[in-house]
Amino acid sequence: MLIREVTVTPVAFRDPPLLNAAGVHEPWALRTIVEVVTDEGVTGLGETYGDLDHLAKTRTAARSLIGLDPYNRNAVYTAVAASVGADVVTDAHGLTGAATLEKTVDRVFSPFEVACLDIQGKAAGRPVADLLGGRVRDAVPYSAYLFYKWAAHPDGPDDAFGAALDPAGLVEQARLLVGRYGFRSIKVKGGVFPPAEEIEAVLALREAFPEHPLRLDPNAAWSMDTSIEVGRALDGVLEYLEDPTGGIDGMAAVAPHVPMPLATNMCVVTPEHLPPAIRQGAIGVLLLDHHYWGGLVKSSHIATLCTTFGIELSMHSNSHLGISLAAMTHLAAATPAVTHACDTHTPWQDGQDVVAPGALRFVDGAVPVPDGPGLGVELDRDALAVMNEQYEKCGVRSRDDTSYMKRFHPTFSPRRPRW
Amino acid sequence: MLIREVTVTPVAFRDPPLLNAAGVHEPWALRTIVEVVTDEGVTGLGETYGDLDHLAKTRTAARSLIGLDPYNRNAVYTAVAASVGADVVTDAHGLTGAATLEKTVDRVFSPFEVACLDIQGKAAGRPVADLLGGRVRDAVPYSAYLFYKWAAHPDGPDDAFGAALDPAGLVEQARLLVGRYGFRSIKVKGGVFPPAEEIEAVLALREAFPEHPLRLDPNAAWSMDTSIEVGRALDGVLEYLEDPTGGIDGMAAVAPHVPMPLATNMCVVTPEHLPPAIRQGAIGVLLLDHHYWGGLVKSSHIATLCTTFGIELSMHSNSHLGISLAAMTHLAAATPAVTHACDTHTPWQDGQDVVAPGALRFVDGAVPVPDGPGLGVELDRDALAVMNEQYEKCGVRSRDDTSYMKRFHPTFSPRRPRW
Repeated sequence: MLIREVTVTPVAFRDPPLLNAAGVHEPWALRTIVEVVTDEGVTGLGETYGDLDHLAKTRTAARSLIGLDPYNRNAVYTAVAASVGADVVTDAHGLTGAATLEKTVDRVFSPFEVACLDIQGKAAGRPVADLLGGRVRDAVPYSAYLFYKWAAHPDGPDDAFGAALDPAGLVEQARLLVGRYGFRSIKVKGGVFPPAEEIEAVLALREAFPEHPLRLDPNAAWSMDTSIEVGRALDGVLEYLEDPTGGIDGMAAVAPHVPMPLATNMCVVTPEHLPPAIRQGAIGVLLLDHHYWGGLVKSSHIATLCTTFGIELSMHSNSHLGISLAAMTHLAAATPAVTHACDTHTPWQDGQDVVAPGALRFVDGAVPVPDGPGLGVELDRDALAVMNEQYEKCGVRSRDDTSYMKRFHPTFSPRRPRW
Repeated sequence: MLIREVTVTPVAFRDPPLLNAAGVHEPWALRTIVEVVTDEGVTGLGETYGDLDHLAKTRTAARSLIGLDPYNRNAVYTAVAASVGADVVTDAHGLTGAATLEKTVDRVFSPFEVACLDIQGKAAGRPVADLLGGRVRDAVPYSAYLFYKWAAHPDGPDDAFGAALDPAGLVEQARLLVGRYGFRSIKVKGGVFPPAEEIEAVLALREAFPEHPLRLDPNAAWSMDTSIEVGRALDGVLEYLEDPTGGIDGMAAVAPHVPMPLATNMCVVTPEHLPPAIRQGAIGVLLLDHHYWGGLVKSSHIATLCTTFGIELSMHSNSHLGISLAAMTHLAAATPAVTHACDTHTPWQDGQDVVAPGALRFVDGAVPVPDGPGLGVELDRDALAVMNEQYEKCGVRSRDDTSYMKRFHPTFSPRRPRW
């Protein structure tokens, strides 16, 4: 079986004005959809970032895969690495940490690896979870991912989620998401308001949801001292505190002084970060993300590494569509060490997707592993065409929360630490 | 697809009187052959140790697997762990390091995991190497594994390999093995004679084989001081020095004072050993062994961990048959980081095997990856029956090099360090 054709399609979908330390989400979120087709006519799907530099690299890599065996992950990786060369791609927003060459290759490789696993699963008539060791859970719990947000993009009508700019707003948003999806864990994207306000919001959530594990993620908006203060103020309230401050050194300085584990998807984002982070005791929880940890299999390797060193696992999310949700679900289902609910932006899609309805759903806050072969999801080609047209027209070419924020608040600074 | 039947067959095959720090190989080596059969009639093969305690655990585990899905490695592992309970199995010889509960489970699990991968490969029509990421090498280099040895077992006729009790004898043995198999690396099993004699032997090999990477493994027979002396005496001669002394602490004390990397299959033999060994800088090379690192997939995870921490990889071998050689070959073929030639006892089998001839061969010291689906080897049922009969009659029930040595040299002591 050989790869005959690879299609790379950028898409855009509407995104609410979600606030974070870097600024605010633009009206359009970008993704890239990858289709890998074999000479036997089996198609595999992958999904990755939509930023222009990354899209260009993904397209270049795609051309280098023709004629390779979709079972040969090593060969596909080598081809992707060769196509990337020495060119490191950095995100403007910096919300998934530092860029390195290995991380750049891992990111470009990821959607192709997922697509190849989709192909292998379809060929064998087995779900991708089975190719990753078999499911240890039939449904993967996700967290309600709360954001401070405006009621609307400044030039648009109010969206369905309403404003959330204070503790009451966040509690209301939580009620909406928990009510609709049944989430049993709650994550708050912080780093937006002064820490005292965000502490107040978390305490309000604790009161409203006494049984839900809570987590807070200010995306490294705080100094080490502020991180310690907030950590201590939330003693007994948070299951973990995510990226309170920047860098392995910073996290290592904070960790011994707060009562809860520190989690990260910013200071440890590629293999070379693990040895120093482990040596320094910087983190207690790693938020895996197969989109930049080199796909599903490499993520499962990293999970073993973390378990060996006593690091717990959760899963990180950027804005994404259903192919990614399916991939994340298969990975988490087959990885025993993912014991924390995973993050997902799915609710913020508000029903927009490139996958045909029916395969993915939330039951009590968890996504049942799709039963079909491979990822268990199929492209909705009409939706893909619409979203690709939206991409062509929307004008957004790379995620830039900061510039968008500055359009409305010219003095906004994404400097970190801010507090 | 479900597991319908599991057969566990102990076998014995003739083994020459190979000397090591624990004593001398008995006339019969033991292995256990595992056959896993699915309800669709696909059979997978696995091979493991033959010691009685381990055989009993393997049989108990086998019964617990009926009805499980051979794709669900996690469920198979859980069933094996439950069948093992809290019962740690220790080897009398101690040549593969300390026993732990996880290592015991990993050892019992391994042949079943290999068999399940054999089944998955056969079902998909793909070699096991493809299920591990695809081959990065078409043939896997092995080392000539030299042993000091007697000309014969004391109560038997001389064997085909002749005596090797001094440098000239080892060089002659190397010429025999290199000539017959084409090996391009040479390993010496030391810990048998005083270090000065073994240094002399290595230097004689260097002279006779100026291009062959050399390694020396005294199975922790030396003190830390002796280890440092030998290491310095062999500066520029060894690619690595394997287990010169015992324990992570001991290896860590030696490592900074010798010019070559230290390798191990004794002080790091299960995941919990990795954090302290890494923290202390005890090793530069890990000798993977899927028989006790929990099968092929977990071994590939451990390979990623080692690569992340700058530890190189080779592969360890105990006396084994062709199912193990096939499994080792698929794993090494699909693991880029296995950059050192792997060890194998295959030459000492002298043609005895449970697999049908033809699938496994050595070309220039390397085993071409079998092309067939799964492991690419099939059982020779007549040979299996003969070897099982040998097992029933041979009287050996657990490997005990020390007692066998003491029968002829009552004052022999396997104490380590000895020098």
